[in-house]
Amino acid sequence: MKVKQPTLLIDEKKCKANICKMLEKAKLHNIEFRPHFKTHQSLEIGRWFKENGVIKITVSSLTMAEYFATDWKDITVAFPVNINEIELINSLASKIRLNLCIENIESSTYLATNLKNSVNVYLKIDVGYHRTGINPERIDFINSILDVVKSSEKLNFVGFLGHSGHTYKSNSKSEIHAIHKESLSTMKKLRNHYKAKYPNLKVSLGDTPSCSIVNNFEGVNEIRPGNFVFYDLTQHKIGSNKIAQIAIAMACPVVAIHYDRLEIVIYGGGVHFSKDFLETENGIAYGKVVENKNHLWGNVIDGMYLKSLSQEHGIISVPKARINQYKVGDYITILPVHSCMTANLMKEYRNQNKIIQRL
Amino acid sequence: MKVKQPTLLIDEKKCKANICKMLEKAKLHNIEFRPHFKTHQSLEIGRWFKENGVIKITVSSLTMAEYFATDWKDITVAFPVNINEIELINSLASKIRLNLCIENIESSTYLATNLKNSVNVYLKIDVGYHRTGINPERIDFINSILDVVKSSEKLNFVGFLGHSGHTYKSNSKSEIHAIHKESLSTMKKLRNHYKAKYPNLKVSLGDTPSCSIVNNFEGVNEIRPGNFVFYDLTQHKIGSNKIAQIAIAMACPVVAIHYDRLEIVIYGGGVHFSKDFLETENGIAYGKVVENKNHLWGNVIDGMYLKSLSQEHGIISVPKARINQYKVGDYITILPVHSCMTANLMKEYRNQNKIIQRL
Repeated sequence: MKVKQPTLLIDEKKCKANICKMLEKAKLHNIEFRPHFKTHQSLEIGRWFKENGVIKITVSSLTMAEYFATDWKDITVAFPVNINEIELINSLASKIRLNLCIENIESSTYLATNLKNSVNVYLKIDVGYHRTGINPERIDFINSILDVVKSSEKLNFVGFLGHSGHTYKSNSKSEIHAIHKESLSTMKKLRNHYKAKYPNLKVSLGDTPSCSIVNNFEGVNEIRPGNFVFYDLTQHKIGSNKIAQIAIAMACPVVAIHYDRLEIVIYGGGVHFSKDFLETENGIAYGKVVENKNHLWGNVIDGMYLKSLSQEHGIISVPKARINQYKVGDYITILPVHSCMTANLMKEYRNQNKIIQRL
Repeated sequence: MKVKQPTLLIDEKKCKANICKMLEKAKLHNIEFRPHFKTHQSLEIGRWFKENGVIKITVSSLTMAEYFATDWKDITVAFPVNINEIELINSLASKIRLNLCIENIESSTYLATNLKNSVNVYLKIDVGYHRTGINPERIDFINSILDVVKSSEKLNFVGFLGHSGHTYKSNSKSEIHAIHKESLSTMKKLRNHYKAKYPNLKVSLGDTPSCSIVNNFEGVNEIRPGNFVFYDLTQHKIGSNKIAQIAIAMACPVVAIHYDRLEIVIYGGGVHFSKDFLETENGIAYGKVVENKNHLWGNVIDGMYLKSLSQEHGIISVPKARINQYKVGDYITILPVHSCMTANLMKEYRNQNKIIQRL
């Protein structure tokens, strides 16, 4: 395979296996599967879900919702409503079933006043990540938002939505289990509190680490994992996936070899990988090198990793026994630390000899 | 000003002042000014240089060279030659004066064999950054590359090019002075060694920190700073610029306010800012908040900074006395930690009511 520029390879088989595995898990637990599409941001990859019967999705911006609205008619925007995009909200709500997240009186009132079509709303609950969402103890506050919702014909209350994003900072599976258990308990309390008034309320929960590891989804109606479609080294480190499940990798041309420093310089930098890094046994790493395998890749090469990144340069640390196996003009394949950020930076995927476009 | 989505503001006055100041410095020292355009990546901003008489530029990829080739006829690609892009090299070399960086026999031989038009070549010297380039002590190795260059009609040796990128990791102006002095001395030795054989050889040197601070460019023929066009918080921290010289800022909608945690959630995340961060007196910061000033911005607000980023969310830490001054739907303006990475992620600049496009 010839690699002219930094190229994002996708392994369709691995990707489809990740999709099917998560879908099977959702079916097994009798919960709805509403995958988050912020990771791949591609209509074509979206169709790999559709082939398997998935009909509802999650995105993280209205721009993404607009892009996916050509193929998908039930989309949740898992991000606090941005009232400054009301035109886009109204345009989307006229075309698809749009599910929004609210967490304050201001946005709710604004929507009640300015919506032209109906939307579904979830109340975003802070299940412990403390990024955003309503403190679940603040029942009076929740009630006052629900009052605004009830008073509007355009707002349909669906239920409570949470994101246990703190699982991403876990160091073990047991930590992920503990976080998930707490989130379940938070949501259960809320459901119990509101079930008389809202017997059909839904609970939406489920990040990639939890959904990959746990088997208890009691009281959860739908899960929204995203990263699992590709997985990455960060997810591997916290226990979500095996290395062999990672479905994307960067192929980067070798432009210089420094035998004295045991380093190879690749064309591939922060504008291709992103600056997310991982603490590894070798120190900071921005990616791990795998064996090349025409259009795809093989096992991780021990001790060979992406040690630093500038805008366009990447520096690979190479074991002494390996350095003579590379020459200028070859390419090196690297597993990403954070697949969402890498996929976001690259404009397309290379699937064997075909190109897959994205937003 | 209404801000619908994360928006990259540019202050044309500050930007043009940065351009003029650096140009004046180059003139004062009688050195050529070949600014690096990887920071702004915009034809329109490029014209602000042209208006001031600049005729030569630097870029960090052949893709950028191709984009700028419509306006610029003398372009240096300050990146080790990527032989896998030979078609693009040949196409560019047929249209413009193309200056490439070589640092090994393999690329040089490949160019000698495969070039269809003449190109200028610099030998990339490692002046101490140890990212890439030839160890300046390896005179035999330099000679063997020069032998390849001499044997080819298509390769014109221009001189030595260095990048003191280690100035970016400096903690003080005196460190920057020391690094620059060492780079000057390295280049002087090389020039002395080769001046009999190559009396017209040029020395190209000069990153933003050095060019902003030092006043000794003895033996340097041209400088190639890039970041100075916008500057940023990182450059401010190491002493390259005043806060008031920073020429771009991100304006991001407020989507949630957490009074209990003294935090504001903005629409603006890692896909807009990049994940570059800075150690500050408050801990890790991904940006500092400044006062809004219709289309532009004012002073830094003490103690108000971007404390964390996920894909689309940013969390602003807000002083207690300030938190009641914001409401959902407002916007917050933030100075970037690393302007090159932020500008690369954003698709356009907003200059008052006009949009400036980029690559």
